[in-house]
Parts: sequence; structure tokens; C-alpha cells
Amino acid sequence: MSQPYDRIFNFSAGPCTLPVEVLEEAKEDLLNYKGTGMSVMEMSHRSKAYEGIIAAAEADLRTLMGVPDNYKVLFLQGGASTQFATIPMSYLPAGKTADFVLTGTWGKKALESAKIYGQTNVVFDAKADNYNQVPNLESLSYSSDAAFMHFTSNETIQGVEFKSDPSLSVPVICDMSSDILSRPVDVSKYALIYAGAQKNMGPAGVAVVIIRDDLLASGPDGLAPMFDYKVQAENGSMYNTPPCWSIYMCGLVYKHVLKHGGLAGAQARNQAKADVLYSAIDGSNGFFKGHAHTDCRSIMNVTFTLPDEDLTKTFIKETEVAGLDGLKGHRSVGGCRASIYNAFPQEGCEALAAAMKEFAAKHG
Amino acid sequence: MSQPYDRIFNFSAGPCTLPVEVLEEAKEDLLNYKGTGMSVMEMSHRSKAYEGIIAAAEADLRTLMGVPDNYKVLFLQGGASTQFATIPMSYLPAGKTADFVLTGTWGKKALESAKIYGQTNVVFDAKADNYNQVPNLESLSYSSDAAFMHFTSNETIQGVEFKSDPSLSVPVICDMSSDILSRPVDVSKYALIYAGAQKNMGPAGVAVVIIRDDLLASGPDGLAPMFDYKVQAENGSMYNTPPCWSIYMCGLVYKHVLKHGGLAGAQARNQAKADVLYSAIDGSNGFFKGHAHTDCRSIMNVTFTLPDEDLTKTFIKETEVAGLDGLKGHRSVGGCRASIYNAFPQEGCEALAAAMKEFAAKHG
Repeated sequence: MSQPYDRIFNFSAGPCTLPVEVLEEAKEDLLNYKGTGMSVMEMSHRSKAYEGIIAAAEADLRTLMGVPDNYKVLFLQGGASTQFATIPMSYLPAGKTADFVLTGTWGKKALESAKIYGQTNVVFDAKADNYNQVPNLESLSYSSDAAFMHFTSNETIQGVEFKSDPSLSVPVICDMSSDILSRPVDVSKYALIYAGAQKNMGPAGVAVVIIRDDLLASGPDGLAPMFDYKVQAENGSMYNTPPCWSIYMCGLVYKHVLKHGGLAGAQARNQAKADVLYSAIDGSNGFFKGHAHTDCRSIMNVTFTLPDEDLTKTFIKETEVAGLDGLKGHRSVGGCRASIYNAFPQEGCEALAAAMKEFAAKHG
Repeated sequence: MSQPYDRIFNFSAGPCTLPVEVLEEAKEDLLNYKGTGMSVMEMSHRSKAYEGIIAAAEADLRTLMGVPDNYKVLFLQGGASTQFATIPMSYLPAGKTADFVLTGTWGKKALESAKIYGQTNVVFDAKADNYNQVPNLESLSYSSDAAFMHFTSNETIQGVEFKSDPSLSVPVICDMSSDILSRPVDVSKYALIYAGAQKNMGPAGVAVVIIRDDLLASGPDGLAPMFDYKVQAENGSMYNTPPCWSIYMCGLVYKHVLKHGGLAGAQARNQAKADVLYSAIDGSNGFFKGHAHTDCRSIMNVTFTLPDEDLTKTFIKETEVAGLDGLKGHRSVGGCRASIYNAFPQEGCEALAAAMKEFAAKHG
């Protein structure tokens, strides 16, 4: 099926597909943003026009996620990986422990970085089963001196996803990089949520941090200003020049999600897309095998294997020729990974499911 | 005079004007980059297409600046302000001193951040004269235990600029954020050069770091990976997802500068533009007063004052109506600042000079 602008179905794990309408609007305004006589890329971040852009992005994100008033919303640089350092630098004081729940690769990276700054404790690790499951967070034992617990709501590489917000007495910090805005969440259950933009929000180059005021205030003095969430909050994410274009693009995406039913609408579309692929897996008589346990199957990253390496290579090659791009799985899981973030179209999932069915019939 | 696409003359201090041809190319490829079927914003940073984009950007920057082989070129997030922290974190060990030359606001910010990480020493400070001059760097006395000396080649707010590369035995670290690519430099005189992109290179969201191998290797172990220049170098600036779009745009700008005579061409155009404005100042019989000493007048930021505050306000208002935008000076200097970075057109300088002449004749 031919896509508008000869675009392909892009199953990349991120950066990834953005809504066509958003790209069209960015293109339309590229040399002259709404009569300002300049591109958003050329605009002073202190100008009225840009202040309007960043204020609207924050307001729309707050509306979308229902962010309570006692939380700050920050747009920062360095991706989630920089927050892996600045979070423990800020909120893991001597004498306290940071508890980590490990359900995949990104949680492990967050842990390794936290170890540099203080005491850590692993309260759950699915390593023995190659990270194919998630625990019940309410049933785990947290450290008595826990500064916070940290988990990764969706593990991109493994395709395992938590399906609800945890109710815990310990402050909860969550890396939502790969499923933020994919479904409604109760922000009040979290002390801090962070996410790189490049899956569901916009292009790479900006990370969103949503932080409760009491945690924010508990940070130490004397940090370098760029690493100090308090400084960033006091300066409205503009202590220095922010990544203006990436924030602008996120703002366009937020408006697009709002226009299409908000997070409930996104969830319904994402679940329908994921169902198409998981049905293809489950209906293949074991030719395709899903990696994740069925109760934690990600609606963002569908991971599955084929009977052997040769068939996997053939499948990836054939689908790529057919315009289904980026299906190669990460080496730690093998097989295939179909990343189907918010903006990925239903038609792409149907095209992949059809290709899977055909391939299994031929080789099964 | 009407500009293409109804664009205005944008004198912003950064982000600022980009070449129209570069914006046109970005617009053309926005929904489908060169037949890949996706936008650069949607592309996996691990894809062949994106690897080509970042490799070309690095190669073109190396060509433009004549970067020797024993230097790494990095594209990082967080702007120059993050390097204010990661440089001393990396290269200011206990028992050593970092020497700072202060010729304006940005040098002072770099100093404040370095103090967090170690011993510092101010070897020159033009504060008493409100930062209107630069010293001869070869005639200053550096600390006997200097880990490095740091200076700011062009101070954006004050409009003072060093006119040559220093020959020093102490390792030289230079913040070139606001004049990189404006003129040829001898990279071999520096241990580390860094610059935010948003003046002469591209949109905000990426900083370039050019670092000599011996300094790179001298960094400590155990830093968080995002703050570790060694990790960034080993991973080709892709330890995590880089700011793909900003790097892509920088790459387009590099090609544009190469096509138009390289840095010698840029310098000739910049000097000609600056001459138009400094001539207008010097020919105004004292109505306009230049802030910087004549020997260090910036060819990027032309700072000048008017006889009083009311005239200043009137001038800024009248020029803004005429499509000359962003001329208000920083409060620490007052008056006006005309930022005329690489991509700012000659016609804009001539339009401003004409407006200055007319205004002085009327109010002088």
C-alpha cells in the first residue's frame, strides 16, 4: 500500500514515526513561523513568540497527563540517560538507598549510573528469565531507608510493560521514555516521571521531567546549575538556551494527541494495533513466539522470535523490501521487534500481520 | 526592502538567522529525507542514513576548521553551559588550578561553574571597565599548577572579541560559542574548543566539542557516562540518542559555509558587515557610542549606546516596525546590540546603518 509522500512503515525503536499532520505543519511554517518572519529554529528563546510555544507545550502536556499543580514540568537536554545521573545526584543522599526494579536493559543502565552517586539495592531482577516479565510492585520489599524506588514502565528492548500505576509509600521514580502518552497514567502516584521525547513526544534532543514539589525542594545546594532541577524549574527550563525546535515539535504532537481523544484515545488505538500483532503471533501455531509474558505484553514494542536465525534474516529482508522497516530485534532478545508508538499507523500493523501470516504458511 | 518568504532582519543574539538555502533544503526533505521514506526526525540514529548524516557533519566541520587528526569532534547535548560543568569535572583534578580570563558574562558563568569542582584563579578581569576590552593572552601570568586556562573568544553580551589564537604553554580551553566558524582559527593552539550551535552552526540543542587526544585521555575514570568525554568519543557522540535534527541542520550549515568560501569567505563577509555598522557608529559624531575598545570590536555582536534611555527605546521601537528585530541590548551594557552572525545578510546591516544615520540626523 502506498503511503503519503512515499513514506514507509517505520518500526524503529526510536527515534520513530511522527504524525504526518505534525510534520506537514512544521514544514508549512519552516521559513516563517506564523508571520514572525523567521523559523522557530532562528527565534530567540526569550522572544514572545517562543515563550508562547514553550508555555503552550507545557500547558498541553499538563492537560494531556492531568499533571497536578504541585508538580513542575521541565524540558531538559541530555535524554533520559542524563537523568540517570542527575536523579541520584539530586535525590540519593548519603545514608539512604535507591531501590531498583530491573525488568530490562534500561533499568539496568539507570542502576549502573546511580551506583556512582550512592547506595543502591536491587529489589527485583528478571535476569534469570531474560527479562520477559514484570513483578507486582506492591508486593516487593523496599529498603527501610529507601530514598526512592525506580522502575521502567516499558522496556523497549524486551517489550515488557507495567499495566498500572503503583501505590507505594516510598517515593516512586519512573522512566517512562518509551510509553509516556501511550495511555492515561495517574501522575499523583509518582514523585518523578521522566522520558526522552523520541518515542511518543517528538524528535530526539529533549527529555521531559515531571517532578513533585516536595521532591524538588529536597535536592541539595551547590550542584552545577545545569544539573540542578531547582535551577531549571526556577528558570522555566530556560536557564540556558533550551532545545527550542524539539520542544516546538513536542508541542505540535501534544496538540495532535489532544485533538485525537487525548490519552484514552491513544490507548485505544495502541491496544488495537498491538492486538493485531499479538494475534498474529498467537495464531501462528508456535511459528512466532512472543518474548514477554502475556500479562505484561507491551503495546509499544512487540517482541517475538522465529524458529531459527536463517528464517529470521529472511523475514526481516522480505518485509524490508515490502516497506516494513526496522524490524530487527535487539541481539539480547533476538528475533524481531515491532515498535508501534503512538504515531505508528494501524495499517502498518495490519501489513505486518499479513506478512507474518504469509511467511508462516510458507515456512511453517 | 522585502525579504524572501516575508522574513525580517533578525538581529537576535542566538538562536538567530540561518541561511535561507539551508532552511529551504530542510523544508524540502522534511517528510521524506532523500527517498528514505521518513523525516530525519523519525530516523533511528543507528540507521545507515543517519550514520551518513552525522559522519558527513563531522567530516565537513573538520574540513572547515582544519581540525588535526589528533583531535576528536563531539556533538553533545546541554549547550555550552553543560560543558561549564563537565570540563572542570573532567580536567581540573585536586591539586591543580584552572585559570580564567574574564572578558564578559559568559566567562564569569564558566568560572562560577568551575568553582564547584576545584581550585580556580582569575588571571584577568575587565570588570572595572564593564568588560569593554580583551588582554594580550601571551602577556598574562598563569598559575604554576595550571590544569588549563579558559577564555571566551567572543563575549556575546559585551561585543568584545579576541582577534588571534593564543600561543601558550598551558593547555588552552576556549568557549567559541558565539564566533566559531566566523573566521579561520588554528585549532592546534587549543586543547579543547567548545561551542553551542545556535549562533553560527545551527539550531539550539547541540554543542560541538573539539578535544585534543592527550587532554581527552587525561580524564578521570568513574564519571557518569553522559558526562564522560571519553565515553562520548568512544561512541561517536552516540552513547545515547543524539539530538539528531540539530546535528543534521548543523551539517547543512557546514556544507553551506564550505560552498561559500569556507571560513575565509565567512570572515570577509562578516568583516564587511561589521564595518558597515562600526562606520555608522564612528560617523555619528558621538550620537552612537561603541561599547568595545576598537581593537577588540566583535564582528558578531555590535554593541552601542545612544545618548539616553528614551532615545534608545524610540530607536528600538522604530527599527522594529521597519523589520529590524532584536536590537535591544543586554541590561548590563544597555543601548543596542546588533548580532550579525554568519548567516545574517549584508543588506540587514546596510538597512540598520541607514536607520542609524537617519535617527542621528533627526535627534542628534
